[in-house]
Amino acid sequence: MTDNAVNIGLIGFGTIGSGVVETFNMNLPLIEEKVKRKVNLKKVADLDIVTDRGVEINPDILTTDVKDILDDPDISIVIELIGGYQPALKFILEAMEKGKHVVTANKALLAKHWEEITDCARRNQVRISFEASVGGGIPLLKPLNESLAANNIQSVYGIINGTANYILTKMAEEHRDFEEVLKEAQEKGYAEQDPTFDIEGHDTAQKLIILTILGFGVYVEQERFHVEGITRITLEDIEFAKNELGCCIKLLAISTIANGKLEVRVHPTLIPEEHLLSSVNGVFNGVYIIGDVVGPVMMYGQGAGMMATASAVVGDCIDLIEGMDRIVNYGPEKTKVTNIKDIEEVETKYYLRLTVIDKPGVLHEISGILSDLDISLESVSQKKREKGQEVPIFMVTHEASEKNMLKAIERIEKLDSVKDETVFIRLL
Amino acid sequence: MTDNAVNIGLIGFGTIGSGVVETFNMNLPLIEEKVKRKVNLKKVADLDIVTDRGVEINPDILTTDVKDILDDPDISIVIELIGGYQPALKFILEAMEKGKHVVTANKALLAKHWEEITDCARRNQVRISFEASVGGGIPLLKPLNESLAANNIQSVYGIINGTANYILTKMAEEHRDFEEVLKEAQEKGYAEQDPTFDIEGHDTAQKLIILTILGFGVYVEQERFHVEGITRITLEDIEFAKNELGCCIKLLAISTIANGKLEVRVHPTLIPEEHLLSSVNGVFNGVYIIGDVVGPVMMYGQGAGMMATASAVVGDCIDLIEGMDRIVNYGPEKTKVTNIKDIEEVETKYYLRLTVIDKPGVLHEISGILSDLDISLESVSQKKREKGQEVPIFMVTHEASEKNMLKAIERIEKLDSVKDETVFIRLL
Repeated sequence: MTDNAVNIGLIGFGTIGSGVVETFNMNLPLIEEKVKRKVNLKKVADLDIVTDRGVEINPDILTTDVKDILDDPDISIVIELIGGYQPALKFILEAMEKGKHVVTANKALLAKHWEEITDCARRNQVRISFEASVGGGIPLLKPLNESLAANNIQSVYGIINGTANYILTKMAEEHRDFEEVLKEAQEKGYAEQDPTFDIEGHDTAQKLIILTILGFGVYVEQERFHVEGITRITLEDIEFAKNELGCCIKLLAISTIANGKLEVRVHPTLIPEEHLLSSVNGVFNGVYIIGDVVGPVMMYGQGAGMMATASAVVGDCIDLIEGMDRIVNYGPEKTKVTNIKDIEEVETKYYLRLTVIDKPGVLHEISGILSDLDISLESVSQKKREKGQEVPIFMVTHEASEKNMLKAIERIEKLDSVKDETVFIRLL
Repeated sequence: MTDNAVNIGLIGFGTIGSGVVETFNMNLPLIEEKVKRKVNLKKVADLDIVTDRGVEINPDILTTDVKDILDDPDISIVIELIGGYQPALKFILEAMEKGKHVVTANKALLAKHWEEITDCARRNQVRISFEASVGGGIPLLKPLNESLAANNIQSVYGIINGTANYILTKMAEEHRDFEEVLKEAQEKGYAEQDPTFDIEGHDTAQKLIILTILGFGVYVEQERFHVEGITRITLEDIEFAKNELGCCIKLLAISTIANGKLEVRVHPTLIPEEHLLSSVNGVFNGVYIIGDVVGPVMMYGQGAGMMATASAVVGDCIDLIEGMDRIVNYGPEKTKVTNIKDIEEVETKYYLRLTVIDKPGVLHEISGILSDLDISLESVSQKKREKGQEVPIFMVTHEASEKNMLKAIERIEKLDSVKDETVFIRLL
């Protein structure tokens, strides 16, 4: 083991930061044996260095001044775990300008400022690692970027938001409504007090941007793709999917090549029970990747949490120490001009749930509209019969274009006998 | 892109070798873009360079003389895909002595000659990569060794033999007997004409040796651990496990730390249906790893096959080109003196199937023996009643020691009323 220690500075002593400190506390001898060097967590910066985080730390290394890290020439790796856009971006850029490698879990920042950050890394010949930004502790970005490097990636399908997956899993397992399960998830700390970011798919979308860069070498801003959350999914949908179609419903992040164009989208998706992704339950994450050489592979594990995420952060540090000069590809130097499909161009099967007044001729009207728009039905099912009352009709279509489907729904919702919003969910 | 090309020599133009050639044919531009260098498959050596492999290849690069590769100073990476012990070992050692990096899929060779091969790599400061040796194209060894580097690994559970898993899956899904399914698997090419190596667990054991080195830094020779195949598993066992216990039966490779000792074993195992490993079906492989920081993760995909395995081989080449000087850990320099548990020390729950003459007092005798040996029962079930005839009794025990279980079975099988061999399967 060489005497020359690697010094690391950590900015952000919150939940994940505490997990990182704890990981070094637990496994420093193991880590040093692996990299064959001394590893020293030299400084930890946070505005609050008073509150007890419940992890052992030498108080002398705590600082409220981030300059103690950024200006220290002995620190060669900076871990950024404060989250958000600013001052995180400023700190990361400054660290790289000063020749320091960076490790971050900041998916929002990467998804928004990808080009600026990676340009800066290239210019300064430093590396930026961000395994923890997608899928928490799951070995995911490095395997995708390195182990599968011989492949043209065909598809990435990810269940990458634990909160949404927990809610959908609980609804299915315990036959409970969305609102009720969400409330419980908030009480248990699995959902934020304002859960919008998770349940409306924004978190999933940010992670999908990163997966799409690594999988397809294409940086797609969030404004350019369809993002839809799980708030419209009812217990009725979940149970019909399960009992009649043998499917579960998952919030899925999709990047896939179809007819030479890239489709990028986030939405609830019906997944057949025999597909491995349907077994990714609760707060767990799973990412299913299809490569043109390897075929399908899946990576699975805890997509969030203090220690799981810390595992990825410290894993990145070790990877950096072992290969500081390694060539790393962060996708193309400029955003490739690529054909990104508009959601309206997507062709898929659909599940529809319509709320209609139970009277003769309703189905005839609806099927007429679908037929006009070239949408053919695989199955139709009306379980309840209550003459003159509102009842649900469930339909599954054959492959149809989203454009036509949207038109059909617009027309269907104008029918007098159709009440309430029509729910439609795409099939995998 | 630099002009200085990386030259690769391939020894062995069989199935996987042809897959490697095909992968370069398919994706060379992508690969060269990633490594920012020209990559040149300079020579392919095989005793047979006449038979058409169905892949495009420049005939000028074919040779029957391995020296054309080993003696070529321009070749810096040698891929060994001839399999077996000799001359594969000789070629690998010679390549490394000549300063060449090596990529191999040869699990048998690595499992047997681990220390000799890795000593040689260290001495010559070259790397040896072998992602393809376990789990085919699944990103597995690199994630385990690198992405999870911050973890002390607690457990590795692997379904890593496609043939055995195909047979067990088909038995369960189609309610068919072992022999019948094996025959079909042979006809379809999923099982060898002599299937011993796969169905008796030897292949799984070799792969487990490699997983144990990378996971725990311990090299355990095959003679030192328990290896048991699937030939005793009947449809009856599979159906009882499913219907009464909610479990499936898988051939599982296990390395796990229990009470400070390492347990290494290969045997059929009852796995609860809610466990993700139970969804690893058919020829697919899955490896479930528990780290002390990250918790559980799983990697899944095709564990064999020409292209899936080639994906890992070429992925290793890219990894080598990107980081020829990278520090790589192949486990400890000397085999750690470690407490490896004897199988008799293992404590687990057991499923038992006994064949007994249906007469009063039999169960009393058996339960007396179990009780004497400190084995308590969780459940007992006798489905058929046929006075004086042979009927099966199914039992599930609480945690018991293997030592006592073996003693109990020995005594039970001596009872007059117990016929046929007693089948026992451990639970996960």
